[in-house]
Amino acid sequence: MARNPVTVDGVTATEFRVRYAETDQMGVAHHANHLIWCEQARTDHMRGLGVSYRGIEEQGLMLPVIDARVRYRAPARYEDLIRVRCWVREITRRQVVFGYVVERADDSVVLATAQTSLVAVDSNRKLATIPEHIRRKLIPVADPVRI
Amino acid sequence: MARNPVTVDGVTATEFRVRYAETDQMGVAHHANHLIWCEQARTDHMRGLGVSYRGIEEQGLMLPVIDARVRYRAPARYEDLIRVRCWVREITRRQVVFGYVVERADDSVVLATAQTSLVAVDSNRKLATIPEHIRRKLIPVADPVRI
Amino acid sequence: MARNPVTVDGVTATEFRVRYAETDQMGVAHHANHLIWCEQARTDHMRGLGVSYRGIEEQGLMLPVIDARVRYRAPARYEDLIRVRCWVREITRRQVVFGYVVERADDSVVLATAQTSLVAVDSNRKLATIPEHIRRKLIPVADPVRI
Amino acid sequence: MARNPVTVDGVTATEFRVRYAETDQMGVAHHANHLIWCEQARTDHMRGLGVSYRGIEEQGLMLPVIDARVRYRAPARYEDLIRVRCWVREITRRQVVFGYVVERADDSVVLATAQTSLVAVDSNRKLATIPEHIRRKLIPVADPVRI
Repeated sequence: MARNPVTVDGVTATEFRVRYAETDQMGVAHHANHLIWCEQARTDHMRGLGVSYRGIEEQGLMLPVIDARVRYRAPARYEDLIRVRCWVREITRRQVVFGYVVERADDSVVLATAQTSLVAVDSNRKLATIPEHIRRKLIPVADPVRI
Repeated sequence: MARNPVTVDGVTATEFRVRYAETDQMGVAHHANHLIWCEQARTDHMRGLGVSYRGIEEQGLMLPVIDARVRYRAPARYEDLIRVRCWVREITRRQVVFGYVVERADDSVVLATAQTSLVAVDSNRKLATIPEHIRRKLIPVADPVRI
Repeated sequence: MARNPVTVDGVTATEFRVRYAETDQMGVAHHANHLIWCEQARTDHMRGLGVSYRGIEEQGLMLPVIDARVRYRAPARYEDLIRVRCWVREITRRQVVFGYVVERADDSVVLATAQTSLVAVDSNRKLATIPEHIRRKLIPVADPVRI
Repeated sequence: MARNPVTVDGVTATEFRVRYAETDQMGVAHHANHLIWCEQARTDHMRGLGVSYRGIEEQGLMLPVIDARVRYRAPARYEDLIRVRCWVREITRRQVVFGYVVERADDSVVLATAQTSLVAVDSNRKLATIPEHIRRKLIPVADPVRI
């Protein structure tokens, strides 16, 4: 059974099952989905740290992804229970870098590792700064796995 | 918090949050996602009734969707906790019709209702029959809501 | 080769190839994509009639889908050249109904037929009216195929 | 108007419009779509070089993505005409690396650059080799832009 997101020592674990629509004709989850899964984990991680990304946007700040890297190590299959662990790798006044490991929940096999960099912009997409009260919550931690 | 799928009286409730990637520039979940959510609910419903759709396909039977209808009543928004309830409306030797209601979990507001019809085909997409032992588990129930 | 959208007698034909990401593990295009393809055809149809949907939204009017029906008749496969024909079935002050036929371009085999109903709302999602100058361009035509 | 894919000097240009379903609530194309667009460009590039990826899979060879990197430089918006240029960066007996630049077709502004690495596997996902006759067609070229 999928557990609800849990944040421990600055790392949030999010669980869900691979959807049929996410598979492709290779019989595995299509590789673009991993970015969507990481995004879901990132949302849950921020919420776990007391930061609502929905709330951030409602205040006119956006955090678009400016760089993404994914290493695919093993396929995810339909109905597999997936666990994505997410953490902050680095943060500056303007940018925040998140790390991810995508695992099969049943046996903890690593399916992928990933990193995304986000930059703060205002509603006109002008560079902005991440507010101090948010930065204080997004504390970087050491990578729990090599990515 | 999202609860794991629960099947009661032939109706399965599945919960998950709206993903950022599922929104569109209207600021709400794009309407094609509802079919994907219904599919996830259908998978969970079948699993709740003791039928693994993954197992069905591994035995060479497929259940493609041949008809889908969705009525959209209210928008789903990013991070909303969504509950989809799914049940069997009708079943014959060749076809099974599922009903769905998509609700906002917090206040049970109905966001959409839907119906999909699936037909049994073999791995060459020739018409097939739904095995008796599966049909016995997919018992139709009365619609819990008008769809 | 895919041709650019062409509007003839109130019906617009849009062509594109099935993307790998659109396939699922049945080896065919997943059924949720047909709604996205219809939406692309609808955008092209409106543009062909001199109505920019992007422009409509920039003026504060939105046309969310409130009802969708798709009948799937044959599978679409990876790299297949698809042609979607789109037309207006009905229009009132508040709603417009589009019809669609999804065909394999090479042999004109019908893969799906569909209908979507859209309603006019303002930026707060309050019911609105479709402006007269837009309504005059979205003239209903007889269905070119039975849907 | 979107032009059909053209391959010149080992670089293929593919054009298409941003779909409404591809936007997110930031009002721009969601960043996971770029991987799908690159995949479409890669398919077109291979076809332009006389290699059908569909044909490759039908012969039991698959080329899953094992590494992906995308740098996002500017947003893509709904209805924007996008041009993705794709080329082979490197190829060995087992792997092939593709480069991509995603541009707005109207003014050639670079929206993103990307790279994906694919590895040859057989239908059981065991490491395989890219057949000589395919390797001869996928000739690496110098990067047309810095990625």
